[in-house]
Amino acid sequence: TGSVFQYLTNGGWGVGGCRSIFQRFFFSPMLFQIDHFGFAEDRTFKQRYLIADQHWKKDTGSILFYTGNEGDITWFANNTGFMWNVAEELGALLVFAEHRYYGESLPFGNKSYADAKHLNYLTSQQALADFAVLIQHLKNSIPGTETTPVIAIGGSYGGMLAAWFRMKYPHIVIGALAASAPVWQFDNLVPCGSFYKIVTEDFKKSGIGCSETIQNSWAAIKRIADTKKGLQWLSNTFRLCSPLKSTTDVINFREWLRETWIYVAMVDYPYEAAFLQPLPAWPVKVICKYLKNPKLPDRLLLQNIFQAVNIYYNYTGHASCLNLTQTTTKSLGLQGWSYQACTEMVMPMCSDGINDMFEPQKWDFQAYSEECFKTWGVRPRPSWIPIFYGGKNISAHSNIIFSNGGLDPWSGGSVTKNITDTLVAIMIPEGAHHLDLRSNNPLDPISVLQARLLEVHYMKLWLQQHKRVKKGLK
Amino acid sequence: TGSVFQYLTNGGWGVGGCRSIFQRFFFSPMLFQIDHFGFAEDRTFKQRYLIADQHWKKDTGSILFYTGNEGDITWFANNTGFMWNVAEELGALLVFAEHRYYGESLPFGNKSYADAKHLNYLTSQQALADFAVLIQHLKNSIPGTETTPVIAIGGSYGGMLAAWFRMKYPHIVIGALAASAPVWQFDNLVPCGSFYKIVTEDFKKSGIGCSETIQNSWAAIKRIADTKKGLQWLSNTFRLCSPLKSTTDVINFREWLRETWIYVAMVDYPYEAAFLQPLPAWPVKVICKYLKNPKLPDRLLLQNIFQAVNIYYNYTGHASCLNLTQTTTKSLGLQGWSYQACTEMVMPMCSDGINDMFEPQKWDFQAYSEECFKTWGVRPRPSWIPIFYGGKNISAHSNIIFSNGGLDPWSGGSVTKNITDTLVAIMIPEGAHHLDLRSNNPLDPISVLQARLLEVHYMKLWLQQHKRVKKGLK
Repeated sequence: TGSVFQYLTNGGWGVGGCRSIFQRFFFSPMLFQIDHFGFAEDRTFKQRYLIADQHWKKDTGSILFYTGNEGDITWFANNTGFMWNVAEELGALLVFAEHRYYGESLPFGNKSYADAKHLNYLTSQQALADFAVLIQHLKNSIPGTETTPVIAIGGSYGGMLAAWFRMKYPHIVIGALAASAPVWQFDNLVPCGSFYKIVTEDFKKSGIGCSETIQNSWAAIKRIADTKKGLQWLSNTFRLCSPLKSTTDVINFREWLRETWIYVAMVDYPYEAAFLQPLPAWPVKVICKYLKNPKLPDRLLLQNIFQAVNIYYNYTGHASCLNLTQTTTKSLGLQGWSYQACTEMVMPMCSDGINDMFEPQKWDFQAYSEECFKTWGVRPRPSWIPIFYGGKNISAHSNIIFSNGGLDPWSGGSVTKNITDTLVAIMIPEGAHHLDLRSNNPLDPISVLQARLLEVHYMKLWLQQHKRVKKGLK
Repeated sequence: TGSVFQYLTNGGWGVGGCRSIFQRFFFSPMLFQIDHFGFAEDRTFKQRYLIADQHWKKDTGSILFYTGNEGDITWFANNTGFMWNVAEELGALLVFAEHRYYGESLPFGNKSYADAKHLNYLTSQQALADFAVLIQHLKNSIPGTETTPVIAIGGSYGGMLAAWFRMKYPHIVIGALAASAPVWQFDNLVPCGSFYKIVTEDFKKSGIGCSETIQNSWAAIKRIADTKKGLQWLSNTFRLCSPLKSTTDVINFREWLRETWIYVAMVDYPYEAAFLQPLPAWPVKVICKYLKNPKLPDRLLLQNIFQAVNIYYNYTGHASCLNLTQTTTKSLGLQGWSYQACTEMVMPMCSDGINDMFEPQKWDFQAYSEECFKTWGVRPRPSWIPIFYGGKNISAHSNIIFSNGGLDPWSGGSVTKNITDTLVAIMIPEGAHHLDLRSNNPLDPISVLQARLLEVHYMKLWLQQHKRVKKGLK
């Protein structure tokens, strides 16, 4: 049990990729129980975490702990520049913990995804337990951190984990910033249609005719895909890597388009960025420039749809063809998330084609469950997350900020109004998916600058409160 | 998903044993996930719970929920008469939930204890999840309970569960009464010697020469057991069902005596009762009547020790011999607890023979772990409970009463001072192990009557607070 810095030295130094705005951080693996909640499986695995200490003030500082979500932790670290800004202000040590089963933190190496048995330990509870054990370990091994207060920060699923971490382990983190965390996108806590409605609104306000063009594209695709020649034309026009051949292929093609619109809405940032894909500033607006005329004949309309899609998949111009199975950066663990969505993370979604621009699709739990069983050999338990984490009844907890972007489809399933004095919501009307977690940028709208100020304000309040309590106990 | 009362009718009626002070309660089984925290094991099992509704006021009442511990739930129900008194006062519905792997709630039937694999789901986390799911189920199925506030009540390990239930599921229970709950008897949170010290003090103040006689008995046994004839004499004198033959037998014999003194101290109630065994009022005093002369020669001293032990094992006079392996009522699940003590519930204990009347014995975790591995095929994880449930750092929680008996050895590992305004400790100097949970008795000391009043007072505060919050949200 040497000091963590020995660990770190063994682990070596890492640089956060070519687009990193950060000077440096440490890489380090640590051994964790594969199963925190049972004793028959007693093996351990190496979990990765990153530490950045350039702003840390040993005696007066705090720890900002990023609760890693479904992807490579270095990628998240590189897209969470806000934490460096806060670190500077609070003299904080930064820790980024990788979520088990993602990035390099694979409990069973390349067998981790082999079957339901190997995947059995991929749950939010196990991940939170990892975080708790990691913080305990850091406090035991980094001199000067024994009583340092810790704040959890995360975005999206990581934001849910940050909030849940504070709820379940308030003795370990004094507060949490849950950015764009759809903690209520479960069971029947919110209407299943809100997600697609928000996506649609984004497109609606980004250009005249834009959402209507997308809405009309579905029928156009169906008409064209009706013939073999049409299929070929679609495959060529959309420069697909694998040409469409069957009805299933066409269904997947439409799914792919649907996902594309969702992803663009999520990353509708005010400046050039490369989160899910390299994209221009305000990508939805850029896309909508191609989608001004919803009344065009099918082929012309779909050619425009291609131009729009091509912005998302090929802004750099490097793609020789478009691949239906690779919709985002490979740093995002879509496989792992698919399993989580088939177990705990059951988020009902539906569209009606009236309040949204998508094809009508009811939420069909039975079909969903069957699909999950086919794919992963497991059945989803849709009411477990609300029972375990409290659903809408969370007012007994404290010190959680729920921040939301008005452009973010996930805001529909998130906390957008204050619950108590210490469970607060911050809205960023011009913000997409956890824009507030990104570095300051000259093109940032005022609302996100205000949000970031407010977030730091609350963190300072928690730290003051913690200081008072500590003094009181002495 | 019929109403719970259909369930209950199918389950039939039950009477709580011949010593029951209660009119009646329902028996009912319900299906629960065997594994709440993983999806590879998707089977369910029948868990038992009892309901008593004679005091329930549907519209204004509450639910008192007993968080079952390591034993048959009907036995606990029959020894928790306090809940009926509170039910009358609060118009409450009573629910007693059996803990998985105990009583009739066996996940794998008679194979439940077969090996580490079958025992894998015997953890406090799984039990708490059962309770959460059960309450959700009751609220969904008993008309009029949808928004009824629930209070958790438990004693001993069940008291720990009640406290932990409030900590981890504050959205489900508005508060908890944790009676004689040694939530700090873990890791190095309290000195390992306090337990035996308190046992010793009980004997010290219950009769002159009492603790010294026990203290001297260990060496006397060693001297006598040194010869074959001595072994035979011991076996005869103590009317043992199986005569002592080996050194191991003698070690077990001394262990058995040690446990006997502990158990008597735990149930040192002011009136005749039959919790662990049928016993007279103030059994430690009764026992100490035989242990006045610590200076007697070995055989005379040990004959007196037998008289003392015989009070605990044979107060009714029905025992034809004394059995080293059956130290308490069979309703207590000692096997299951042994497994839990070898996994999560690692409670360091030590004696020094100076501050206590026992043979000196250091806390040896390595030896303990080896023994666990031999017996159950698992290794204990001593720091897991403090990491998961917060150890001494629990001030972020609210609405928990920790009640303690001054005579109870477990009070040494419990919360005996207020932590905050809403995390409060109640001391009952003349109380043994969760005396406050028992029915009122004419022989009750004033301190326990006051404790019960205060406990009800806090419960009423929680209910008022809950009402205010509910109104505020509307």
